[in-house]
Amino acid sequence: MTRLTTHRREPLADLLRAVPEFTPEEVTVALELADQALEASGKGDGDGDGDSDGYRFLLALEDERVTGYVCYGKTPMTAGTFDLYWLAVHPAHRRRGVAQRLVRAMEEELLREGALLVRVETSSAAAYDATRAFYDRVGFERAGLLRDFYKAGNDLVIFAHRLRPAKTGV
Amino acid sequence: MTRLTTHRREPLADLLRAVPEFTPEEVTVALELADQALEASGKGDGDGDGDSDGYRFLLALEDERVTGYVCYGKTPMTAGTFDLYWLAVHPAHRRRGVAQRLVRAMEEELLREGALLVRVETSSAAAYDATRAFYDRVGFERAGLLRDFYKAGNDLVIFAHRLRPAKTGV
Repeated sequence: MTRLTTHRREPLADLLRAVPEFTPEEVTVALELADQALEASGKGDGDGDGDSDGYRFLLALEDERVTGYVCYGKTPMTAGTFDLYWLAVHPAHRRRGVAQRLVRAMEEELLREGALLVRVETSSAAAYDATRAFYDRVGFERAGLLRDFYKAGNDLVIFAHRLRPAKTGV
Repeated sequence: MTRLTTHRREPLADLLRAVPEFTPEEVTVALELADQALEASGKGDGDGDGDSDGYRFLLALEDERVTGYVCYGKTPMTAGTFDLYWLAVHPAHRRRGVAQRLVRAMEEELLREGALLVRVETSSAAAYDATRAFYDRVGFERAGLLRDFYKAGNDLVIFAHRLRPAKTGV
């Protein structure tokens, strides 16, 4: 698992364009987040994770090709919640545990920072059946459903993964 | 109901600082969105609503003071969903229907643009009891709950308001 750097921006773009589930608009948005993260790390916030208050990236590499990546960031106005914004694995590298290793690496990092919760939003469309099954499998729970959110017949499914017990009464 | 303009930025800031439910961090974030909207409208996207793809504001005024406002915007990668990001009414002007008029004006505008759904995220904290009751009253339905989202003991409550029937099968 490695960080996003300037010279990995194009390999990341290659991956995004190879993901059949993503629309062109989604590829554009995903790359905008990468460019924001690169711009922030170029300004040097000094903590080595790109931009601690913005978008963070973890990349899975094989022979300098990006086989998968996860993009996440701290949820504003929360004490310890993070949003997992994007998770993608190249079609030629699926069913090998890449997504699970990415999520585990992300969650280990977040636990070290004291995070409590990870939220994921995904689609009810058939193209995302395997995605939803993946989040069920790696410990996320379904926390919400918004009918026709993406478009008519395509709902929003919200998952949450509690990383550790909450300390209440503080 | 009027739009946000540069000379209403300070009256809006006065309102935000008078809202007892908001933390200083929340006031800062709310003003950042206002500044982004003003910057976008200064660049002139030409449709008269500030920034059609960014944050939009509707303000309720009384004697040039802002008595309440709503901030909303199109949800990226959706066909017809909007997020209602902020809704606030000055403590001295509550229980007079200001919030309801703001939401109705926003929803009439969104319906004219063909919007289908409005999403709101709010808190389970006691300070937001009246807020949640308000959304129940004006037609929103509870669509999700994420425990300990804001902090331990402070959950995220997700509301959705369907503005019109979805056309499925298209």
